[in-house]
Amino acid sequence: MVRISKKRSSKAGMPAGSLIHIGERKVDKIKIKLINYGEHDYIEQDIENIAQCFEFKDDKTITWINIDGIHDTDMLSKLGDCFGFHPLILEDILNTEQRPKVEDFTDYIYVVLKIIDYEKNLKEVTFDQVSIILGKNYLISLHERPLDIYETVKNTLKKDRSKIRKAGSDYLAYLLMDSIIDNYFSVLENVGERIENIENKIITNPSPKTLKATHNLKRDMLFMRKSVWPLREVISKLERGEISLIKNSTRIYIRDIYDHIIQVIDTIETYRDMLSGMIDIYLSSISNRLNEVVKILTIISTIFIPITFIASIYGMNFKFIPEFSWKWSYPVVWFIMLAVIITMVIYFKRKKWF
Amino acid sequence: MVRISKKRSSKAGMPAGSLIHIGERKVDKIKIKLINYGEHDYIEQDIENIAQCFEFKDDKTITWINIDGIHDTDMLSKLGDCFGFHPLILEDILNTEQRPKVEDFTDYIYVVLKIIDYEKNLKEVTFDQVSIILGKNYLISLHERPLDIYETVKNTLKKDRSKIRKAGSDYLAYLLMDSIIDNYFSVLENVGERIENIENKIITNPSPKTLKATHNLKRDMLFMRKSVWPLREVISKLERGEISLIKNSTRIYIRDIYDHIIQVIDTIETYRDMLSGMIDIYLSSISNRLNEVVKILTIISTIFIPITFIASIYGMNFKFIPEFSWKWSYPVVWFIMLAVIITMVIYFKRKKWF
Amino acid sequence: MVRISKKRSSKAGMPAGSLIHIGERKVDKIKIKLINYGEHDYIEQDIENIAQCFEFKDDKTITWINIDGIHDTDMLSKLGDCFGFHPLILEDILNTEQRPKVEDFTDYIYVVLKIIDYEKNLKEVTFDQVSIILGKNYLISLHERPLDIYETVKNTLKKDRSKIRKAGSDYLAYLLMDSIIDNYFSVLENVGERIENIENKIITNPSPKTLKATHNLKRDMLFMRKSVWPLREVISKLERGEISLIKNSTRIYIRDIYDHIIQVIDTIETYRDMLSGMIDIYLSSISNRLNEVVKILTIISTIFIPITFIASIYGMNFKFIPEFSWKWSYPVVWFIMLAVIITMVIYFKRKKWF
Amino acid sequence: MVRISKKRSSKAGMPAGSLIHIGERKVDKIKIKLINYGEHDYIEQDIENIAQCFEFKDDKTITWINIDGIHDTDMLSKLGDCFGFHPLILEDILNTEQRPKVEDFTDYIYVVLKIIDYEKNLKEVTFDQVSIILGKNYLISLHERPLDIYETVKNTLKKDRSKIRKAGSDYLAYLLMDSIIDNYFSVLENVGERIENIENKIITNPSPKTLKATHNLKRDMLFMRKSVWPLREVISKLERGEISLIKNSTRIYIRDIYDHIIQVIDTIETYRDMLSGMIDIYLSSISNRLNEVVKILTIISTIFIPITFIASIYGMNFKFIPEFSWKWSYPVVWFIMLAVIITMVIYFKRKKWF
Amino acid sequence: MVRISKKRSSKAGMPAGSLIHIGERKVDKIKIKLINYGEHDYIEQDIENIAQCFEFKDDKTITWINIDGIHDTDMLSKLGDCFGFHPLILEDILNTEQRPKVEDFTDYIYVVLKIIDYEKNLKEVTFDQVSIILGKNYLISLHERPLDIYETVKNTLKKDRSKIRKAGSDYLAYLLMDSIIDNYFSVLENVGERIENIENKIITNPSPKTLKATHNLKRDMLFMRKSVWPLREVISKLERGEISLIKNSTRIYIRDIYDHIIQVIDTIETYRDMLSGMIDIYLSSISNRLNEVVKILTIISTIFIPITFIASIYGMNFKFIPEFSWKWSYPVVWFIMLAVIITMVIYFKRKKWF
Repeated sequence: MVRISKKRSSKAGMPAGSLIHIGERKVDKIKIKLINYGEHDYIEQDIENIAQCFEFKDDKTITWINIDGIHDTDMLSKLGDCFGFHPLILEDILNTEQRPKVEDFTDYIYVVLKIIDYEKNLKEVTFDQVSIILGKNYLISLHERPLDIYETVKNTLKKDRSKIRKAGSDYLAYLLMDSIIDNYFSVLENVGERIENIENKIITNPSPKTLKATHNLKRDMLFMRKSVWPLREVISKLERGEISLIKNSTRIYIRDIYDHIIQVIDTIETYRDMLSGMIDIYLSSISNRLNEVVKILTIISTIFIPITFIASIYGMNFKFIPEFSWKWSYPVVWFIMLAVIITMVIYFKRKKWF
Repeated sequence: MVRISKKRSSKAGMPAGSLIHIGERKVDKIKIKLINYGEHDYIEQDIENIAQCFEFKDDKTITWINIDGIHDTDMLSKLGDCFGFHPLILEDILNTEQRPKVEDFTDYIYVVLKIIDYEKNLKEVTFDQVSIILGKNYLISLHERPLDIYETVKNTLKKDRSKIRKAGSDYLAYLLMDSIIDNYFSVLENVGERIENIENKIITNPSPKTLKATHNLKRDMLFMRKSVWPLREVISKLERGEISLIKNSTRIYIRDIYDHIIQVIDTIETYRDMLSGMIDIYLSSISNRLNEVVKILTIISTIFIPITFIASIYGMNFKFIPEFSWKWSYPVVWFIMLAVIITMVIYFKRKKWF
Repeated sequence: MVRISKKRSSKAGMPAGSLIHIGERKVDKIKIKLINYGEHDYIEQDIENIAQCFEFKDDKTITWINIDGIHDTDMLSKLGDCFGFHPLILEDILNTEQRPKVEDFTDYIYVVLKIIDYEKNLKEVTFDQVSIILGKNYLISLHERPLDIYETVKNTLKKDRSKIRKAGSDYLAYLLMDSIIDNYFSVLENVGERIENIENKIITNPSPKTLKATHNLKRDMLFMRKSVWPLREVISKLERGEISLIKNSTRIYIRDIYDHIIQVIDTIETYRDMLSGMIDIYLSSISNRLNEVVKILTIISTIFIPITFIASIYGMNFKFIPEFSWKWSYPVVWFIMLAVIITMVIYFKRKKWF
Repeated sequence: MVRISKKRSSKAGMPAGSLIHIGERKVDKIKIKLINYGEHDYIEQDIENIAQCFEFKDDKTITWINIDGIHDTDMLSKLGDCFGFHPLILEDILNTEQRPKVEDFTDYIYVVLKIIDYEKNLKEVTFDQVSIILGKNYLISLHERPLDIYETVKNTLKKDRSKIRKAGSDYLAYLLMDSIIDNYFSVLENVGERIENIENKIITNPSPKTLKATHNLKRDMLFMRKSVWPLREVISKLERGEISLIKNSTRIYIRDIYDHIIQVIDTIETYRDMLSGMIDIYLSSISNRLNEVVKILTIISTIFIPITFIASIYGMNFKFIPEFSWKWSYPVVWFIMLAVIITMVIYFKRKKWF
Repeated sequence: MVRISKKRSSKAGMPAGSLIHIGERKVDKIKIKLINYGEHDYIEQDIENIAQCFEFKDDKTITWINIDGIHDTDMLSKLGDCFGFHPLILEDILNTEQRPKVEDFTDYIYVVLKIIDYEKNLKEVTFDQVSIILGKNYLISLHERPLDIYETVKNTLKKDRSKIRKAGSDYLAYLLMDSIIDNYFSVLENVGERIENIENKIITNPSPKTLKATHNLKRDMLFMRKSVWPLREVISKLERGEISLIKNSTRIYIRDIYDHIIQVIDTIETYRDMLSGMIDIYLSSISNRLNEVVKILTIISTIFIPITFIASIYGMNFKFIPEFSWKWSYPVVWFIMLAVIITMVIYFKRKKWF
């Protein structure tokens, strides 16, 4: 339940613009990677001190600074001073409980989104925040911990000389966002498989554990929806052409991302509906079981209580019970009991209890 | 449950524009049919190599290329190169989990929709994706497997010399979409019949199987809604007159399709409401049954437990029980027991348990 | 359940504009009535052949053609040819599963709505489709079967010389629609009475039959809503003044109809809410009953099982049971049993089970 | 259940503009009160014949005609003729099942709203309709029965010479509406108290009666919402400045009413949510009780059934049962029985049944 | 349940503009604090008589008057007269059941919002109303009781000479609102922790008490939503730039608050969904328990009732029962009983009851 806002309140009462890291610290040491590329060049460097990046700032080539770990407020304020970012942006980067959003400051735009992953072992969906600052010839991406997701983008950039390298920094931003959103589908697939598993269990062998699992999945979908729903608006804002940093040629690709997000939202809603349906089936199969159990109890009681009564009648010790001395009393009683049993069985057959 | 997005993730991390087939491969060999017609001519050909189609491209007559099977990425990229389609369109054709949508590229428009069928044997609703690319004098339709639905359109085209052949390619697109959407009604009829069947069963003989069937239908309606709902917007966009390829004379027909879609959506919503109501009835009839069963148990117990107690009293072996030696003890006990039974029966009658 | 779309699919695959009757045939012989009136004249005629109407077409007086029964496609196409109606209108007239809608063709407007009736004997709500085509000096109304509803309009027209006869054909259309919508209120009253009846039964004597009736009413309200909801838009379109055939003086009357429709929709929603509440009460009263039954079972068992046990103790046949030969054993046992009973009764009193 | 539309249908089929009273007649004799005031004058009169009012019509002073009882159609049509009201307004006044609405006829505006009261004895919310017709120098208010609510307005008018008397008829209309809407709060307070009462009962001693009361309150809130929700739009229309009869200085006061209505709607929604929550608690406490009852039954049965069995074993009459002649059989059996009981009690303790 | 509107009705029937305090009086003596500051000066004073404030009114420095306790209507009307506030504002200040709103009077704006706190001891969420009146060079804040929340703002103002003191009164208003809204997060954290606690209890040991607590939390979230939801609109209005008193440089900070409010609303909705899910789990775990209990009852009954019957058969006292005199009767009967028990146990194993 780490996703419920926590430590957010530690900031209450501080003046706006104070840089305080809100959220779990997911990495020990901050790692900075700098990639500088143009049509013909490609340089990749691990960097110790953020100041090393600043020389590339006014370069014509495109500079991509990728930072893993965001708890170092000093580094951030240096970065902010150099590039001239508004203090509220730095605050937003440090607060890992942002809603996805985009803010346009004409010279640069600031985008927040969530990387979503499915931990197969824990059967849990995890959320990490990504901040992207896109300028004319630079892109800065910041996240809470190192993620595989950027490797593919980096590799594409390294190999492919023609198209991507010629395109501007906005196309690089598109590539990053596309790979993040493509990953949502893989999360949904895993969730889809898990839904199928649980559904089978609910029909064959419902237990409180399956119900718990269903509820957990439903909650994961709730949190995922919370992370994806505002993205719709974010991407639509990028696509509408109001933001001058996004070129027209890139906009058609962003529309493609938009379609993917709609699909993701659709699937989340479908899953939520399916999970609700599964809870209904669970509840009704539980009450079905109760029914079965009570039926067995009733059959046993209804058959044996009357015949036990008959037997107990002749267990009485009165002196004057004429049946006691009759010769055929015992078989006659047995016969009567059998008649009762058969009548009951026929009655239950009619009621379709078997 | 093939409709849950699958293998979509195999694309995660690949650059946009990579052609990869996403979805089940529903046909082995791709079949291409070419129909070329004008007011006076009608040619129909089976084609092996997609290149054969390209000579008709700049023809004045209308060319309809119908392709069954979409997994051949080579063929698609050839087609794209020849007609000059945007790479994202080819990607979309290959991804069979698209939402219905329309995209206008001025020279041509790209429409995605779903063919919905009801498999009577499996009692299942199936979904296939259709891509339609409409140009000034050509129409390319692509689907995952051969479908009867186009036969009627082809036959109309073959016979009728006057009206349809004179109309442009946009009217042909209308005919295709109309026959696809008309098919939705037949699916809904089948579903409607099945709802009636299940409803009868729920009232006469509810079982977990009927509940399962109701839930499956509800889920089918959920998926159908997901496929039809966005169509509303698609068709409305085609009808609004913003797209230059759609002539004004065709627009009134498209408005007719629009009405049909609204009707389909209305019916789906009605079915969903009805199915929810049926689940309620099911649950309440289950708890009614429990009630009946417990009532029988209670009647039997309430009648026999007291009189069995009386009998067991006189089964005690104390030496000094005066009743043992009385002459009328036995009939008196019987009388008391009968009195208890009658009292109970009257009590239950009053409570309206019979 | 005739309201679920049926036979609609018989049209699937036919070219648009084919005239096919969709729906139940509710009348054997088509009856055509022609009324021609001006400020001073009033002619009313039963007509055999639709062609007889055509001479009145270009008349200055207002011509009202009322047709009961719509399955004769020949007659319809003649009518369409004479008045120059768009083929899609004729198709719509024949399809009795239209949603209420209005279409403006400048020269004439086409309105579809539903006549709703409550069959007191069957306790069922019925739906019939009415098509109204309104031209400058004519009005054609078509329905599936003869209806009383038009009699009043006709009679008003016959008697009242002053106002209505001077007004144009649009005022006649208003009168027709007003009487149709006024009838909705009478349906709702009947439904309201039925709701009250059922509600009383649910409180005094709930049975699965009452639940079924509640569900049927809920479904009727669902279908009624489906028929009335789109009317809101239809009437609002007529009132907004975009349609040139509707004069300004008539528009204020149409606004009055609009208010009525909002009231009808409001009432339908209220009824639906009330019916849902009744189902909740039903379910909770069922589980209350179960509670009562189980309570009785528990009281009987809890009292008699322990004392029966005591009796059975002294039914054992051991040789050495000292109590057997004691003089007061029997009354003492009785005393113990009474003590158990009294304790139990006090316990249940405390638990407020009586 | 008087609020369900009734007798509305008696109008079905009548031409528009026919004056027929729809609704319950709540008063025997109609009472007309005339108040004529200016900055310096104040005249108050009871009037027998409506015609007496007409002399004040073109007066410069403001004339307020208050009519209790609306079933007299003659009087209404006289009033309408004199002031030149549109016939549809007279119809609307007579129909007590109007939705709150405002209609602007430039010379005068017509407002319908509901007076809501809480009958403490019947524990019922009642609804009365008020029609207000506001002209440049007159205001006519009509309601179904005499109401205390206007007394305060009248008294304020009588005493206070300065502000209110100088303000125009629109300010008088504001005063009336303000006092009507202020009364909603007092109804909500009563309902709030009743909710608290019922809630306590549901927790301490839930009975079907409490459930019924909850449902009745929920229904009252449903009807109240139906009466207040459209008011939002009405007041917002008056405030927006489109209506020339409402002066700018009055509009800020009307905005104040608007805020009150939003508050009322908010509270109604909150109450509805609370009542739904209470029904949930009721249902779960019912099933809790069932649980308790079944638990007791199970404890008793589980303890006594096995030991009764042991006793009945030694009640058998076989000749060769060795235990019969053993000396310690009887105490040993007692010991075994005690062991069974203790085991069971420990088992139940572990299951936390006590 | 103090949040349900109370005493609101005491105003019903009074003329608008009457100053009456509505709500609980939360403080005995009103405390007024005056802070006057510019870039270089900072004066802080406790004030007895409100009139002392008025000399600062036309000062160039910024004057902040903070008033704890609002029940003194005299003081308020003096304040209103001096600053020239509209009478409706004074009324609104006195009514502590306002919805959050902003009203622009060009010279000054009036903002109402709620301070929300979580009382850890009572496990209750509390609500206090704050009124802020912002003028060009003054800010007046009024609340029902002294609150810690303003201390931080005051301290920041005292220490920091540079930025905040130079900024105008609108920036001070921002600081106040920011600290109020930051406090919402701390409330949500506390609620989040409580949700986790209750959730654990529901799974391990559900009791009606946990259900009650869940419902209370749900209701708190309902009230919190009611207080926060309208704030969205309020802040958005302040940010849109329509209000001249808010400078452009301040607007970006207000946009930051807006983001926070969206986050708060999101979290409230998430909590509501989670609490609903918890109620579902509670109910299903209750019915699971019932199931378990009934299962035990059935197992015991099904095993012992048949064998008790066998024993009672041979408890009969007929003279002619051949088994009585057989030698092996007793062990054979035991054997049969054991067979019955084993059969039953196997049967239950198969049904997976153990």
